[in-house]
Amino acid sequence: MRELMIEPQQGLAFELRAGEKLKVIDVEGGQVADLLAFRRDDPQERLSTGATIDNNGSLYLRPGDRLYSNRYNPLLRLVEDTVGAHDLIHPPCSPEMYRCQYGIEGDHPSCYDNFAAALREYGLPAILITTPFNIFMNTRVYADGRVEVKEPLSGPGDYIVLEALCDLIVALTACSVAESACNAYRCTAIGVEIWK
Amino acid sequence: MRELMIEPQQGLAFELRAGEKLKVIDVEGGQVADLLAFRRDDPQERLSTGATIDNNGSLYLRPGDRLYSNRYNPLLRLVEDTVGAHDLIHPPCSPEMYRCQYGIEGDHPSCYDNFAAALREYGLPAILITTPFNIFMNTRVYADGRVEVKEPLSGPGDYIVLEALCDLIVALTACSVAESACNAYRCTAIGVEIWK
Repeated sequence: MRELMIEPQQGLAFELRAGEKLKVIDVEGGQVADLLAFRRDDPQERLSTGATIDNNGSLYLRPGDRLYSNRYNPLLRLVEDTVGAHDLIHPPCSPEMYRCQYGIEGDHPSCYDNFAAALREYGLPAILITTPFNIFMNTRVYADGRVEVKEPLSGPGDYIVLEALCDLIVALTACSVAESACNAYRCTAIGVEIWK
Repeated sequence: MRELMIEPQQGLAFELRAGEKLKVIDVEGGQVADLLAFRRDDPQERLSTGATIDNNGSLYLRPGDRLYSNRYNPLLRLVEDTVGAHDLIHPPCSPEMYRCQYGIEGDHPSCYDNFAAALREYGLPAILITTPFNIFMNTRVYADGRVEVKEPLSGPGDYIVLEALCDLIVALTACSVAESACNAYRCTAIGVEIWK
């Protein structure tokens, strides 16, 4: 088993082989992890949260549901989930988001920049960054279309397990927002375990 | 005033200057039009339905709401809307979607291919295609996260008006799906009017 730790407001990328399991752990609780996935043999085929919503007919995922690519092929399967509240519709936080929503003009760590840096190590350009699977992000939707981001339901040690359905490059961040309920107003670490 | 007609299952791209109004008309009723928008001076900055949902706190748009870019800048403002039911979460239909959801292996017109062809005329690569603003697409969401695509609420002559907030390249399609409720099981034309 491989074990990795993503420090607060950091990100990394790694390979995940077909059949391998990926456990994403909310170490202290209340922390979101953004995930992107790319086919190892053709990274232009990548996780599409839109295709995932379309094929599952739902904004929320349940164990057994699959996550699909922009070419409507299954990339990952949700195997286990001790939380049950995640997000498929929000962009990764970015310098422009911090400027727009919080008036922060200077440097602020962000999932976008962390994705860009992590993907660069695999030769993948930032243009490939799209809407992530935002694990533990507790977005509630209402019948009138209203969307609300509440504090995560995850406590210390809560986790999900995903199974790779083909060879992937996965990028994962510990979300950088300390300014909102998204990460319960503080940024903490995300644990990773990978096994066959 | 410029007038354009998008024939059934076709698409086109055009320039829209800051301050110009764009009227998108459902000519016969029950027809979806997918819209993408790119900044004229830097097309890597483009419509992000995710940023639009994030900034408006809603999956549905109301008159006065703005549509934002991946850099969280406002690109368009919804000025008028005689329908009130549109979509910000579904990918454009694509050959792979028709294969996955309907088992159609051969050629089928698609919004994705129509976008790719229309953008090519402006030198924009297909990698820039993301989730469109799907005008008249009647996607209902429920509090349990379930998503359902129902027949459009638009009748003949119904329309929306958008105002450009900066110089844009806009790509627009008359959606190609005849196999589902999305376009009320038939594909018809979309009318366009542009004026200052």
